[in-house]
Formats: sequence, C-alpha cells, structure tokens
Amino acid sequence: MSSGTLFVISAPSGAGKTSLVAALLQQLGNITVSVSHTTRVPRPGEVDGVDYHFTDSVTFNDSRRAGEFLEWAEVHGNFYGTSKRWVDDTLAGGCDVILEIDYQGAEQIRQLYPAAVSIFILPPSLAALRQRLDQRGQDSVQVIEARVAAAQDEMRHYGAADYLVINDQFEQALAELGAIVCAQRLALPLQQQRHSALLQELTEL
Amino acid sequence: MSSGTLFVISAPSGAGKTSLVAALLQQLGNITVSVSHTTRVPRPGEVDGVDYHFTDSVTFNDSRRAGEFLEWAEVHGNFYGTSKRWVDDTLAGGCDVILEIDYQGAEQIRQLYPAAVSIFILPPSLAALRQRLDQRGQDSVQVIEARVAAAQDEMRHYGAADYLVINDQFEQALAELGAIVCAQRLALPLQQQRHSALLQELTEL
Repeated sequence: MSSGTLFVISAPSGAGKTSLVAALLQQLGNITVSVSHTTRVPRPGEVDGVDYHFTDSVTFNDSRRAGEFLEWAEVHGNFYGTSKRWVDDTLAGGCDVILEIDYQGAEQIRQLYPAAVSIFILPPSLAALRQRLDQRGQDSVQVIEARVAAAQDEMRHYGAADYLVINDQFEQALAELGAIVCAQRLALPLQQQRHSALLQELTEL
Repeated sequence: MSSGTLFVISAPSGAGKTSLVAALLQQLGNITVSVSHTTRVPRPGEVDGVDYHFTDSVTFNDSRRAGEFLEWAEVHGNFYGTSKRWVDDTLAGGCDVILEIDYQGAEQIRQLYPAAVSIFILPPSLAALRQRLDQRGQDSVQVIEARVAAAQDEMRHYGAADYLVINDQFEQALAELGAIVCAQRLALPLQQQRHSALLQELTEL
C-alpha cells in the first residue's frame, strides 16, 4: 500500500478555507482533515472532537512538552496543536491528510515532512476579505479591522506555499483544490507504488 | 504576462495518447499541441499541417543540421522533429504547449527545458494494449507483435516522467490529464506572475 500525502492548507481568516476543505472532503475519497487541539473557547455551534479538540492550557502544555504535537502555534492568544500520532497513523494507512494551519505551523510541517504539499488560499481582494470578516456579525468594527490586519500578516507568508488558490468563485476554487490533490496522486512515486504489478507486466520481457 | 508551461506527453503506440490530447484541447483553453515534422508516409486520413508536417528526408536533415529542431528522433526508421521557434514563440505568448513525443525526445526536452512537466500515459494491461494495436486492422500479426515489443521498449522509460496516467477509462484518464495541467497553473511561480497586483494589494501595509 502506498502511504498518504500530507496537504498543508493555510489561509487568512475569512478566505473561506474551512468551507472549501469541508466541500473537498465531500467530493474526494481517501482524504481526511486533522482535528486540531486548541485552548480557544468554542464559538457558537462548534462541536468538541469535530471542529476542534477543546482543551485547557495546562493539558495543552503538558502534551506540548511531551512532544505529542507535530506543530503548535499561538494565534490571538490561543494555542493550537496537531497530534503527531494521529497524522502519522493516518498517512501510514494510505489516507491523505489535510492540515488546516497557519503559516507558523506550515513552516514547522515543511521541516518535518519535506514531501508535504502546501496550498495557500487567498481572497479575491482586500475589500472582499473585509466583507467576509464582517458578515460573521459577531464583532465590532475595531475587532474586524484587527482581523483584517492579522489576515494581512498571515497573507504575507503566501510565498512559502507550493500552490496558490484564489477563492473568488467557490466552485472554481473547490475544483482547483481537487485538481491539486488529484495531480499529486498521479505523481510518479505514488503511482509506482500503487501500480507496481501493472508496471512490471507492461515492461517485462 | 506569465509564460506558458511545456507539457511533454509520452506513451507507447496504442495507449490512446492522441485521442486523450485531442479531447484535452477541446476541454481546456490556452493550451495547444505542437505539430511535428516527420519523414513518415501519411496514414489514411492524416492531413499535412494538422496531424504532421510531412516532409522528405533531405529537407528534414537540412533543418536538423540548421538547429531548427528542439528535439528529433528516429522511430521505426522514420524521423520526427519539433520546431524550436514555434514552441518558444507559443510559450512566450503565454500559451501552454503539449509535445507528444517518445522517450528519446522527452529526454532531450528535459535537458533544454528543466521546467517542463512530463506525463507518461500507460495502458491498463498488456492484453488491452495488444487489443488496441490490433483494432487498427491494417497490419499483420507479425507487425502487431513487433509493435507490442516496441511499446514495451517505450514503456520501460516511464520512470523519467513526473506523472503517470493509466488510460483504463478514457473519461477518467482525461480528467486526470486535466487535473495535472490545472494544478501546474496553480503552482506558486505562475500564480505570482498572474496575480501580482492582487498579491501586492493583499499584503501591503
């Protein structure tokens, strides 16, 4: 069995990353998304174990010191981490894994998994981003502008990704993400593992 | 304007390469296929300037000596060559170019265009390949078996390609080729060229 590919998907808040990844999982087989551990307070509607593994700072720091996180990051004063064992086990089982993480985490992943494929999702304009951040309707203008500034900080790191997807039309961005995953599965090393018997049959004397 | 990408598509005779490339061109915009020069005699239905630029050995060798071919190869005693000027002009105009060439030509292209993306198309089995070569209905058993052997010689070079596509179901193989081209267009360097104004807007203070 061929091992899975690790896809690192980064984006500023408001670029539509979570919706795109959810739709991608609906469309493709043999791919799943890592559920992060976080010390952040759940937002309305978020479910523990589905959206995040919600945890407290003491437990998070214990896990961090025990080396149980593949990557971790502090964002807006909250901690986020990815379970190393879960990712390794899932990849070893032949399933692709998506990590939805920010540029700090993506940088750590690239060091640990040089074969990881990283994708950066961007909004079609700053005005569209501001509008999307506003439409959550939970925050003040000051909070929204701080979020826009934080989004810009994140976006300045797009240059470390392998692929850029502009989320202007949702369906097109979704198709583009699907094409990146599909193409990756067709790369020589994975196809050689997957079709070793066929390749031997076709080339043997 | 961003320059086009050179796609090198190789396959044994009978793998369905020409039909797949024709369907791909119908589906995608901004991509075209190079028409090779050849000393081979036209097959029934082949049109000069569309399927090939048919030429004689003297003219071919003059062009070859003048360095007008990006790559050339001898296959089954016939010569095939690709016009360097046409490829360079088309890429410079921002259009992707497909070269349908055998492993000898592909090797020459990889030397000259390190950024070229190479794809190898394979049949789903040796039996299916033999059947496809037979269905042309123009040749004897001996000729067909010689073609199977030649196909195997070609297929032994699949390992030099970036991507492998197995043409079992035509529509799936077509979608896979499309995904490879689409993903390539989303790669960072091309997207940076294409969306430079947006990237500046999103990241400027």
